[in-house]
Amino acid sequence: MILAKVVGHVVATQKCDELRGSNLLLITALDDEQQPIRNKTWVAVDSVGAGLHDIVLAESWFALNKDRYKAMSVVAIVENVFRDA
Amino acid sequence: MILAKVVGHVVATQKCDELRGSNLLLITALDDEQQPIRNKTWVAVDSVGAGLHDIVLAESWFALNKDRYKAMSVVAIVENVFRDA
Amino acid sequence: MILAKVVGHVVATQKCDELRGSNLLLITALDDEQQPIRNKTWVAVDSVGAGLHDIVLAESWFALNKDRYKAMSVVAIVENVFRDA
Amino acid sequence: MILAKVVGHVVATQKCDELRGSNLLLITALDDEQQPIRNKTWVAVDSVGAGLHDIVLAESWFALNKDRYKAMSVVAIVENVFRDA
Amino acid sequence: MILAKVVGHVVATQKCDELRGSNLLLITALDDEQQPIRNKTWVAVDSVGAGLHDIVLAESWFALNKDRYKAMSVVAIVENVFRDA
Repeated sequence: MILAKVVGHVVATQKCDELRGSNLLLITALDDEQQPIRNKTWVAVDSVGAGLHDIVLAESWFALNKDRYKAMSVVAIVENVFRDA
Repeated sequence: MILAKVVGHVVATQKCDELRGSNLLLITALDDEQQPIRNKTWVAVDSVGAGLHDIVLAESWFALNKDRYKAMSVVAIVENVFRDA
Repeated sequence: MILAKVVGHVVATQKCDELRGSNLLLITALDDEQQPIRNKTWVAVDSVGAGLHDIVLAESWFALNKDRYKAMSVVAIVENVFRDA
Repeated sequence: MILAKVVGHVVATQKCDELRGSNLLLITALDDEQQPIRNKTWVAVDSVGAGLHDIVLAESWFALNKDRYKAMSVVAIVENVFRDA
Repeated sequence: MILAKVVGHVVATQKCDELRGSNLLLITALDDEQQPIRNKTWVAVDSVGAGLHDIVLAESWFALNKDRYKAMSVVAIVENVFRDA
C-alpha cells in the first residue's frame, strides 16, 4: 500500500456505475520525510471517511476484495508513522 | 486511478475479441498543475463517452469488474479538480 | 494498454505450460513522437498475428480474460494514431 | 516480489475491515548493495512475524491467494542473499 | 513479461505457506543491450528450473493462473533474443 496525503478531491458526474456515490479523493504519495512527492498524484475512492490533509494508506496494487472495492481505494487513516531507517 | 487528458485516439481493425467495438482513447497523465506529462501516454477503452481534451479518470491498476471491463479503461469524466496541497 | 512497437522476438524452449505454442514478441514502448523509448522493452504473447515493426497495443495491467490470456499480451495492431495534445 | 527492509510501522485505528488486527510494516526497497532506496517506501501487512530491520520479501504485484491476503504483504523473512551479478 | 537475468538466489526459512518448497531466484531486468539494469532487481519463484546467469522471462504483472503461481514467477528460459529496433 502507498503512504499518501489527501490533497483535494475531484467532481465527476459522468462516471461508470461502480463509482456512483463514491467520494473521489486526490492523494499524493509521501517521501521519506513525509512530504508530498511532485507529480505522484492519484485519485482514490474513499472507504474510511478520510478528509483533506489526512495521512492515509491507499491500495494501488489492487488486492482487496473486488466485490467491495471498485478501484484504487483509501483503506486507512494513519495516526502515526514510526520510522527508524 | 490516474488523472489524465484525452489527447487523441487510435484505429485498430485487427484486435482481440474483447476490444471489438471499443473506442480506444489516447490518454496522457496530468502533472500537479494539470498539464500533460511527456511520454506518460496510454491507450484506454472508453466507457463513459469521453472526447478529445476531456479530463478523465482511468483505472490503470485493473480493479474493475472483469466481466464488464476488458482492459485499462476510462471510467469518469472530471468536471472539477479541487487541490489544496 | 501501452502503445508499443514490435522490435523482435525471443525463442524459449523451456517454458511453463501456459506459454507453450505462443509466439513471444519483443515490444518497446513508444514516446509522444512514436519513437521507441530506451530500456522500456517487454516480452508479450502475440494474440493477433503481429509482426516485426508493427505498432501494437499490449495489455500490461493484466485485465483481460485470464482463461484466454496467459501473460502480458499484444491485443491489437494499430493502423493509425491521431494525437492532438 | 521486492527485496525490502523493515524500517518502521504505522498505526491506523480507522481502517477497512480487511486490515483489522493487521500489523502494518513500513518497508523500503533495497538497491543492488542492499541499501534502502530513497523514497521507495510502502506499507505492507505482516504475515510472517517480521520485525524492525529484518530483510523481507513483499508481494507487490498482488498474486497471492486473495482470500488470505488482503493487501500488499510481507511474505518471507530473508536470512541470506546470494548475488553473483 | 520482463526479460531478466538470474543473478543469484535468496534463502528464507520463515515464509508464507504459498512459498514453501519454492526456489527463490534473484533476477535483474535487462536493458536494450541485454545488460543488467542497476537497482531493477526482484525475487521470483522459479517454475522452469532456471539457474545462475540464465536469461529468463518473469511475469511481473501477475497474469498467470493463480492456482499454479503464487507470486511473481520465472516462466521461461530464453535461448535467443532477436532484436531489430
